[in-house]
Amino acid sequence: MLTGLLRRGSSAMTVFGKRLSGAAASAMKPVYSEVTGDDVDFFRSKLQPGAIVQGTEDLASYNKDWMNQYFGKSKLALRPKTTEEVSQLLRYCNEKRIPVVPQGGNTGLVGGSVPVKDEVIVSMSIMNKILDFDEVSGTITCEAGCVLETLDDYLADKGYRMPLDLGAKGSCQIGGNVATNAGGSRFVRYGSLRNSILGMEFVLADGTIVDTLTSLKKDNTGYDLKQLMIGSEGTLGIITKLTISTPRRLPAVNAALLGLESFEDVTKLLVEAKTSLGEVLSAFEFMDLEAVELGLKHLHGVRDPFESRYKCYVLIETVGSNPTHDGEKLEGFLEKSFEAGTLVDGVIAQDNTQMDSFWALREGLPEALLKEGTQGTLKYDVSLPMKDFYELVTDTRERLSQLPAATVGWGHIGDGNLHLNIAITEKGASELVKAQMDPFLYEWVRSRRGSISAEHGLGLMKAEKIYYTKPKSAVDIMKLIKHALDPNGILNPHKVLPRS
Amino acid sequence: MLTGLLRRGSSAMTVFGKRLSGAAASAMKPVYSEVTGDDVDFFRSKLQPGAIVQGTEDLASYNKDWMNQYFGKSKLALRPKTTEEVSQLLRYCNEKRIPVVPQGGNTGLVGGSVPVKDEVIVSMSIMNKILDFDEVSGTITCEAGCVLETLDDYLADKGYRMPLDLGAKGSCQIGGNVATNAGGSRFVRYGSLRNSILGMEFVLADGTIVDTLTSLKKDNTGYDLKQLMIGSEGTLGIITKLTISTPRRLPAVNAALLGLESFEDVTKLLVEAKTSLGEVLSAFEFMDLEAVELGLKHLHGVRDPFESRYKCYVLIETVGSNPTHDGEKLEGFLEKSFEAGTLVDGVIAQDNTQMDSFWALREGLPEALLKEGTQGTLKYDVSLPMKDFYELVTDTRERLSQLPAATVGWGHIGDGNLHLNIAITEKGASELVKAQMDPFLYEWVRSRRGSISAEHGLGLMKAEKIYYTKPKSAVDIMKLIKHALDPNGILNPHKVLPRS
Repeated sequence: MLTGLLRRGSSAMTVFGKRLSGAAASAMKPVYSEVTGDDVDFFRSKLQPGAIVQGTEDLASYNKDWMNQYFGKSKLALRPKTTEEVSQLLRYCNEKRIPVVPQGGNTGLVGGSVPVKDEVIVSMSIMNKILDFDEVSGTITCEAGCVLETLDDYLADKGYRMPLDLGAKGSCQIGGNVATNAGGSRFVRYGSLRNSILGMEFVLADGTIVDTLTSLKKDNTGYDLKQLMIGSEGTLGIITKLTISTPRRLPAVNAALLGLESFEDVTKLLVEAKTSLGEVLSAFEFMDLEAVELGLKHLHGVRDPFESRYKCYVLIETVGSNPTHDGEKLEGFLEKSFEAGTLVDGVIAQDNTQMDSFWALREGLPEALLKEGTQGTLKYDVSLPMKDFYELVTDTRERLSQLPAATVGWGHIGDGNLHLNIAITEKGASELVKAQMDPFLYEWVRSRRGSISAEHGLGLMKAEKIYYTKPKSAVDIMKLIKHALDPNGILNPHKVLPRS
Repeated sequence: MLTGLLRRGSSAMTVFGKRLSGAAASAMKPVYSEVTGDDVDFFRSKLQPGAIVQGTEDLASYNKDWMNQYFGKSKLALRPKTTEEVSQLLRYCNEKRIPVVPQGGNTGLVGGSVPVKDEVIVSMSIMNKILDFDEVSGTITCEAGCVLETLDDYLADKGYRMPLDLGAKGSCQIGGNVATNAGGSRFVRYGSLRNSILGMEFVLADGTIVDTLTSLKKDNTGYDLKQLMIGSEGTLGIITKLTISTPRRLPAVNAALLGLESFEDVTKLLVEAKTSLGEVLSAFEFMDLEAVELGLKHLHGVRDPFESRYKCYVLIETVGSNPTHDGEKLEGFLEKSFEAGTLVDGVIAQDNTQMDSFWALREGLPEALLKEGTQGTLKYDVSLPMKDFYELVTDTRERLSQLPAATVGWGHIGDGNLHLNIAITEKGASELVKAQMDPFLYEWVRSRRGSISAEHGLGLMKAEKIYYTKPKSAVDIMKLIKHALDPNGILNPHKVLPRS
């Protein structure tokens, strides 16, 4: 099958080469076909009953993202039940030049899983079987459509947990998590999702099934192709099955909310936490005063545990195997930091209720922002070197000081991931604020060699912004790989790779 | 520059496509040029004084591997000092079709860094500067030629450590470690080296410099190209600079040597260790009775700490932030395992001397094997699912029971990585043993979906064995990517990708 792909690739490659040299850009534009009744008949003959979704109403939830920001016009969604079905429908679409959008839980934030025009949607929702679990090694094998929370609940019974945790866990699917290399709040402990994926089965644009579904932690036999699929946002193939390494579910959980006088002290505290808490540190979340005040203003039932206000706040969590040890470690760390003057104030959660209330403040910030921003909000998800982490917030605040806009910063500082947020508070100010922020923000991030998308991906929203983070040489290689694996460009068009 | 590469790629692609369909295999064979005096003059004009190595004697150490198994006939080694120099020499070699072998510390075990014929050697040894270190995030940026131990010593002063540890650390270079995705004995704690690489600068075959040298832990902007370079063994480009995330150097280190009655008990112990020791577990090394007896027979100064012999032995190590806590955890874990009957005997190291003696036994096993195998040894480095881990040793032992050969097994069982070793003890038996093992071993590993190279890579030795672990569809994609990035095939020819 791949031979065919290669052969088709050969003739088109010349066009691609010319395109990169700027000579025949228009010739590169893929030519797509619209779906006909015959096509639908074909799909019906290959898929199981109920796998064909048509009609505006039934397609509504497939055609828009959950933030209601992106809307497609697809006339057909397909729900394959097996890898072989995915293969058959992709092979057909590739031959007929019918563009396709792979869709998981459709919980992304950058428009990556919604059609741009009338692409056929391939929904992975009913490929949701758990296939195997090894209690010794903690590896789980499952289909791509499994919901993250379902997997985590299954593992809880076995004494294990999923290595990632997201707000959208009740809806997002593991195939989509992997296709977008999703981040989340346990990154500081378990690392990138990329690190936990041991095996993968995926289907190329021409229908070739690539079965590298092993459960091996170590395998140095050739290029690690699954790494190319991870984070490619459905533009190189459709992930059908995964084997994932999962960590033990440990019994001791502690949390503390801390107040500090400066961002410099926050960085000092992070270094000390890595030494004193080392192996048990599981979250190190930063919030600035403005973020906390927004939370206290808008969030129901959240209250300030301190008597004074502080410039910076840190929410620390530890997870370990021994409650006594972890409690002692946390107390020792806090004592040491008080004595060093890094820390000004701090509260250790005495029970689950108090722990939940700390997290309610941190996790409620997006909601508080929405309430403050009556005339709209701007949300940026950037990675920055630690030394530049907070400067972007203060620079933005100064830049917008004459406008009716509140700038707040929070984020997974343990991973260098800042969520910069702006709430617009007066009617008509939205365009003024946007004009101040774009290209300012992207240029600022580029000047510090940061990333314009730490964990959300590029999707449709940021495809044209890629050059702010990646050099042209890297984007050229991406185009080369995209073209080699999907020469007709049928997989998730308009996403990730820039047209420019 | 890349445009040129693409254009050249276009015409050759047809040939490649035909080759895969079996029509014109001979047409695919790259045509290489021999190095002339003019070429040497060009290199001399571009590189710094002392960068040109010629003459059989001076080239001897470049032309063979350290195990004295592979010998090349290169007449020229180049020692670039800067990325720009690497770019210039590759661009020239690509234009002239001169094949190139990238070489780091030349400590590999599969012949990956030695010329097969008269390829030009590009030695990275003098690109060895440490460029930056961030004390808050623990990220180090350095050139590819830095020796692993040099980096670890530098980090020790800062309170950090390298996330990998190898026997060859005094010679191996970080660029080579990354190009081969080296494993080692701290994998169970810090995971694959792949996970620690944050940024990379590399040079493509045509001289294009790709600078993705960021220090960001999270960056979801397009395909993660450095992942493609990691483990590609110098066949896709030359790594010139790296940014690496390093963990804190923690103060508490403990070790225990344990005796068990069956391999099933070893797997039970591993599950319990993951729960009770969880976050502090840093090594879980397995040795069978036959391996330990070989060690006791041949290794100077190593003695049996037990009064009886056991079927299986495990060396456990913990590394953590608090000595008291870790000691308590280890004792609690051992008590529990004794009570459960999993464990029969065990000794906790009371001081560094005893700890070193445990490791001397484990790390001395390759030496003991060499001494036992007076007529040769066979060494296999395989990954297997946990449930099949030890069966390969017993199956092999049974298979060779009529031959003068000792079969011993040890390995990083925490990672599923088995080192299966055979010592041949009678003259003339070598070929008989080999005939019993090949293809038996490769077929056995394939039947359990294992990997024929867990951590050593494919190099020249195992390139033709790749299909035992990877399906044809995956190898076809690898060839496609190789051809797209190195259309003239100048980078490390005959390595990794099979000719068949």
